[in-house]
Amino acid sequence: MPVRLIEPAAEAYRYPLLVRHLLHTPLACAADQQIIYRDRQRHTYRSFAVRVSQLAGALQKLGVEAGDTVAVMEWDSHRYLECFFAIPMMGAVLQTVNVRLTPEQVAYTLCHAGAKVVLVNRDFLPVLDSIRAGLPGIRRCLLLDDEPGAAAPAWVDAEYEDALAAEAPSFRFEDFDEHAIATTFYTTGTTGVPKGVCYSHRQLVLHTLALTAAVASPAHGQSFRHGDVYMPLTPMFHVHAWGNPYVATLLGVKQVYPGRYVPSELLALRARECVTYSHCVPTILRMLLTYARDNGMSLSGWKLCVGGSALPTGLATEALDAGIDVFAGYGMSETGPVMTVSRLKEPPSVLGRQREIERRCRPGLPIPLVDMQVIDADGRSLPRDDQRVGEVVVRSPWTTPCYVGDPDASSELWAGGYLHTRDVGRQDASGYLQITDRLKDVIKTGGEWISSVELEDLISTLTGVAEVAVIGVPDARWGERPLVLLVADAGASAVLTADSVRQHVEAAVAAGRLPRYAVPERVVFVETLSRTSVGKINKRALRELYGS
Amino acid sequence: MPVRLIEPAAEAYRYPLLVRHLLHTPLACAADQQIIYRDRQRHTYRSFAVRVSQLAGALQKLGVEAGDTVAVMEWDSHRYLECFFAIPMMGAVLQTVNVRLTPEQVAYTLCHAGAKVVLVNRDFLPVLDSIRAGLPGIRRCLLLDDEPGAAAPAWVDAEYEDALAAEAPSFRFEDFDEHAIATTFYTTGTTGVPKGVCYSHRQLVLHTLALTAAVASPAHGQSFRHGDVYMPLTPMFHVHAWGNPYVATLLGVKQVYPGRYVPSELLALRARECVTYSHCVPTILRMLLTYARDNGMSLSGWKLCVGGSALPTGLATEALDAGIDVFAGYGMSETGPVMTVSRLKEPPSVLGRQREIERRCRPGLPIPLVDMQVIDADGRSLPRDDQRVGEVVVRSPWTTPCYVGDPDASSELWAGGYLHTRDVGRQDASGYLQITDRLKDVIKTGGEWISSVELEDLISTLTGVAEVAVIGVPDARWGERPLVLLVADAGASAVLTADSVRQHVEAAVAAGRLPRYAVPERVVFVETLSRTSVGKINKRALRELYGS
Repeated sequence: MPVRLIEPAAEAYRYPLLVRHLLHTPLACAADQQIIYRDRQRHTYRSFAVRVSQLAGALQKLGVEAGDTVAVMEWDSHRYLECFFAIPMMGAVLQTVNVRLTPEQVAYTLCHAGAKVVLVNRDFLPVLDSIRAGLPGIRRCLLLDDEPGAAAPAWVDAEYEDALAAEAPSFRFEDFDEHAIATTFYTTGTTGVPKGVCYSHRQLVLHTLALTAAVASPAHGQSFRHGDVYMPLTPMFHVHAWGNPYVATLLGVKQVYPGRYVPSELLALRARECVTYSHCVPTILRMLLTYARDNGMSLSGWKLCVGGSALPTGLATEALDAGIDVFAGYGMSETGPVMTVSRLKEPPSVLGRQREIERRCRPGLPIPLVDMQVIDADGRSLPRDDQRVGEVVVRSPWTTPCYVGDPDASSELWAGGYLHTRDVGRQDASGYLQITDRLKDVIKTGGEWISSVELEDLISTLTGVAEVAVIGVPDARWGERPLVLLVADAGASAVLTADSVRQHVEAAVAAGRLPRYAVPERVVFVETLSRTSVGKINKRALRELYGS
Repeated sequence: MPVRLIEPAAEAYRYPLLVRHLLHTPLACAADQQIIYRDRQRHTYRSFAVRVSQLAGALQKLGVEAGDTVAVMEWDSHRYLECFFAIPMMGAVLQTVNVRLTPEQVAYTLCHAGAKVVLVNRDFLPVLDSIRAGLPGIRRCLLLDDEPGAAAPAWVDAEYEDALAAEAPSFRFEDFDEHAIATTFYTTGTTGVPKGVCYSHRQLVLHTLALTAAVASPAHGQSFRHGDVYMPLTPMFHVHAWGNPYVATLLGVKQVYPGRYVPSELLALRARECVTYSHCVPTILRMLLTYARDNGMSLSGWKLCVGGSALPTGLATEALDAGIDVFAGYGMSETGPVMTVSRLKEPPSVLGRQREIERRCRPGLPIPLVDMQVIDADGRSLPRDDQRVGEVVVRSPWTTPCYVGDPDASSELWAGGYLHTRDVGRQDASGYLQITDRLKDVIKTGGEWISSVELEDLISTLTGVAEVAVIGVPDARWGERPLVLLVADAGASAVLTADSVRQHVEAAVAAGRLPRYAVPERVVFVETLSRTSVGKINKRALRELYGS
């Protein structure tokens, strides 16, 4: 289109969207605000900025140039936050290494990303030592250690604090293309090798602005604003702790970094530093609630965004009862990560308890600029009626442009110009998303989709059902039909029959809770259900066993 | 710099920052929210989106193509909001015409912008009729009228509602370069012809995101968030009502457009629609406070951002007493416009009344991504010590890239790579800006700057002073020195002398309120001070009279 463009004045600043620009306002307005690491270190934003400069100087001395990859293997710390800024600001690429992978997988990701320098916490020295012989690309290594001065292996070049102390307090960060890759991270699916996603400076800046606008603006809680005290409870290696350290820094709030996650220490630190905003996966929330209950600790006044997997209503209720303003978010490694965050549009007193909890547990509402669609099998957008389910696809300015070096997977990810989440869900008229299934587990029948998870939830409430799995099996007429695999409680076989299961589902259909075509023709009673190594029901194995 | 760039997957969406993308989340999450025009029309975001499509269809039928300029002469209305989106979304340029200019100036700006189609409110038909003969570039005209069906002159092509009604409810808005010019506006200085500034799609989107993050995030009031009801009280022609209608739309809040500003109607509308957030210049606030007091109306629960000129403490105090959460903002036509917004970092109970009001009246804190510096005469950044004054210069992603078609003024605006505001001020250690003078009125002496305004304020408190102006006059040794021009009250000449004025200033110097070099050598008693046509003291004339 022949739009109107204009030539800026020769000296006009073009303002590329670079990570360094996130620092202007916190340094002007919150220079004395604190950044805290456990009970070990207390910095200010002013000293943080000096340390970012010193880190860049130290890395430059180690040979890091623009375009190089610098890998970090670290717990959540002020040092990691310094890496979040210094490494991209040099024009280098920060690889946040998933330290929970096997040594072989860590080696694969370091090699694939072309890491040249590694910053490694003492706790991960054994892992790195076990794989470094196979990684000739790694030229230098900087040790991250809470106890400076302790002995280090000969192959470590320097200790972080020593390296910083040798540098000047201001580094000349230059401007460059806002599309420069700032960070990379490897995501592990259930199959195949880890896949690399990457984010540019432009993407990090836009994600930070949009997420700030989203979490700062709720009317009835679920907010992250000036005056809050921030502590991450999602590892910083995992898509920049969901982008929150960048938001916290932009806001200029007090930040608290807890190191390795140990419940007693996390909760003591939270109480001591008056933390008001965090984010975590359901497992961590479960762990914290249990610890706090067992030790008589208060959790009130804490706003907690839960993501990574669905927030169960039972867990949410327990958290609410403990005084936590708990709410869900939704995203994945490929999506920057945040796509949606939940918030209450009306105060709890208006919503009523049940609706309040349901709203808090929904993955939420799309954040600014997110174009989220739920599409049917033919790629058509479905209406926002909270009824029709389809695949969730998304466009936002901060989705990964590809899987690094994997054109086939990249094409699949972006088929049709939208990023495919491979999650199945529905949206309601007020924008709330609900995720009902993974795409691979959904049952596609007669052009419609049935959520295996919803059907399992329903059948599991029937007396006598010990375990249940629903899978799709090929059907000549409908494409697929649901097959119910059921483990009955001992002695329940007298009352629990295929007919009673069908009647139970039919009752839900009559109540409008499920579509008519969800009623299963086949119910098979089995002794056990196949499970994966981490204990999840293995639907792939079940499909192989019962699918034909 | 050889940074790492990556080739996106072929089908990956590049996501240009276009105005149309601001609509995804409000349409998904707030489709039934209201957009109201006076007591005349009530729309929803859903019908607003349909009308935006219909407007684009109607304009296309009138021959509007990408790159064309469409001018709008209108009061604040839902129609104007539709223009804010439809015209840029077509790839065309929205010219928001300053309807307060003289007909000759309006003609100049329409001609300079190359307007091809004009949308004109019935109230401005006489103005347009008086100048249209000299504007052959204008091919078509659409009438904006609260009374559809009323008679229109023959040279009007159609009435707005009729034109919309003839169009399909969905227009195919295409993607294009995010640097495409979206809007243009003419600013009038004290000298010369109006100068055109312009903003690209990218700039509008970034300004909207950053302003949303800034106004949504305060801890102690001064906020604009979900749950608020928005009504502009700064004309929409003036730099998009300071960008607030875009923020309101992104948030998906209820919006109320008041038409022409009539105090009785504004306040009745505010009460009826429960408006909670507005913005205006001090003059409008003065007018509203007076009207409300005289008519016993409550203004409590209203958050009001005041900009355009300094918010006087007296006015702020009166507004606070009336229950208004009043606070200042700072920007100009060239800067997008918002650079800073004030907010309280601590609650009023902690600050104390005097400090609270002082903070509310400061132009405020830079909003995200704004790189604001105060520089001395040699272009060096001054420390944030609330003492040293210099020119305020700025970089942000939404400053105008130039004055359209005026390379000399553009070079001056962007000299040294920062946009020159020509305002003089200082910043304190916590980021608060204070504007002390206009650059042309500041007195430059021995490499330091003295604010004429601060000196005038001080001297005006001396008994017997009726009026005072301070100007800089050439000085062989110091460059410039202050000259005090003083009109004494009748009978005050016995006590008021040049010496008593100097002693008064010396006392302020001793108290650390002014620098030593601010003590004037020369104080001249005069009968009157020259004034401009709008009644302001004319310092240019005074410099001509007394400057040598």
